[in-house]
Amino acid sequence: MQEHILSKLVDDLARFPGIGKKTSQRMAIHLLNKDRKGAEEISASIQEALSKVRKCGRCRALTEFDICSICQSEKRSESQICVVENLQDLYAIEQGGSFRGRYFVLYGHLSPIDGISADDLGIDLLIDQLSDGEVQEIIIATNLTVEGQATAYFIAEKARSLDITVSRIAHGVPVGGELEYLDGNTLNLAIETRQGF
Amino acid sequence: MQEHILSKLVDDLARFPGIGKKTSQRMAIHLLNKDRKGAEEISASIQEALSKVRKCGRCRALTEFDICSICQSEKRSESQICVVENLQDLYAIEQGGSFRGRYFVLYGHLSPIDGISADDLGIDLLIDQLSDGEVQEIIIATNLTVEGQATAYFIAEKARSLDITVSRIAHGVPVGGELEYLDGNTLNLAIETRQGF
Repeated sequence: MQEHILSKLVDDLARFPGIGKKTSQRMAIHLLNKDRKGAEEISASIQEALSKVRKCGRCRALTEFDICSICQSEKRSESQICVVENLQDLYAIEQGGSFRGRYFVLYGHLSPIDGISADDLGIDLLIDQLSDGEVQEIIIATNLTVEGQATAYFIAEKARSLDITVSRIAHGVPVGGELEYLDGNTLNLAIETRQGF
Repeated sequence: MQEHILSKLVDDLARFPGIGKKTSQRMAIHLLNKDRKGAEEISASIQEALSKVRKCGRCRALTEFDICSICQSEKRSESQICVVENLQDLYAIEQGGSFRGRYFVLYGHLSPIDGISADDLGIDLLIDQLSDGEVQEIIIATNLTVEGQATAYFIAEKARSLDITVSRIAHGVPVGGELEYLDGNTLNLAIETRQGF
């Protein structure tokens, strides 16, 4: 005789990214002992999100509408598109609060070794939008990894062929960052891309 | 216009213990983008556990039966009960694999300041079981905190009044532990409770 239901819950909760078996055990016990109402809500929220949340038809961010709230907003400029690798990057830039253009979410980067091509990243959809005459500048905010850089070059080439200004977010010393704790690569890059003062 | 459904999911996932807003955001995005099948299963598992898992009528561990699989097992001795503060402690001892008695789970410790009394810890239910003549030894495995110790003394007194042997799990140097890295309290206790060799 085994406790199948509880072990299945523990196993299922361990499917969350970054959650191991010990943590999922703690989560399951917490839900069942201390927060049954919360458990109901989590289960219902997951169901509702699964049935109603999908990718925005323009920027591919997750949304409950056909076109997400940022893409629909009249306060956002149609002339700038910021390309990010992940939805979390979009949220981080939104948190900053100063960018008033739109986004495009790739959900990854070009990686032939993992079989991830331009199609998988929705780059066709992006090119369509660049071709409509509204967009004047594309701001690339992919990561500074080999794959992120390759993806950036690929997109930049397509955009330039459509006569669109291509820029890249600045990389360098974070605001409030102390030089002595920064890695050499960042400092080299910060010096190389120094600006007039 | 706001993305209510996605934000509610992110907020709800942050109800899990030890999960902050950033992590719950990552969890939500992962479920919706990369593991929709897993999301279905998590939601269904929570529902099933909520409707079927409750506390064992004897030891209070979580179970899908009236009496949990450990309490029902004929391979487990009726003469020993190990008292633990949390279900995780029970699982940890089971992982060890050598204890063959039964358990009793308090889900906490006596704490007048938080309004947690003997009733909340199910100590009445424990005393009932100690009175039935089968139990010969109670092994207390509460934590070595002030509250854990107070709880241990309280239970020990009740058990002794019923002529039941009371013991406490040994505290000291962990197997494979190196003395130089252990805290002073543990070492003091280990020397104080040294055993004949």
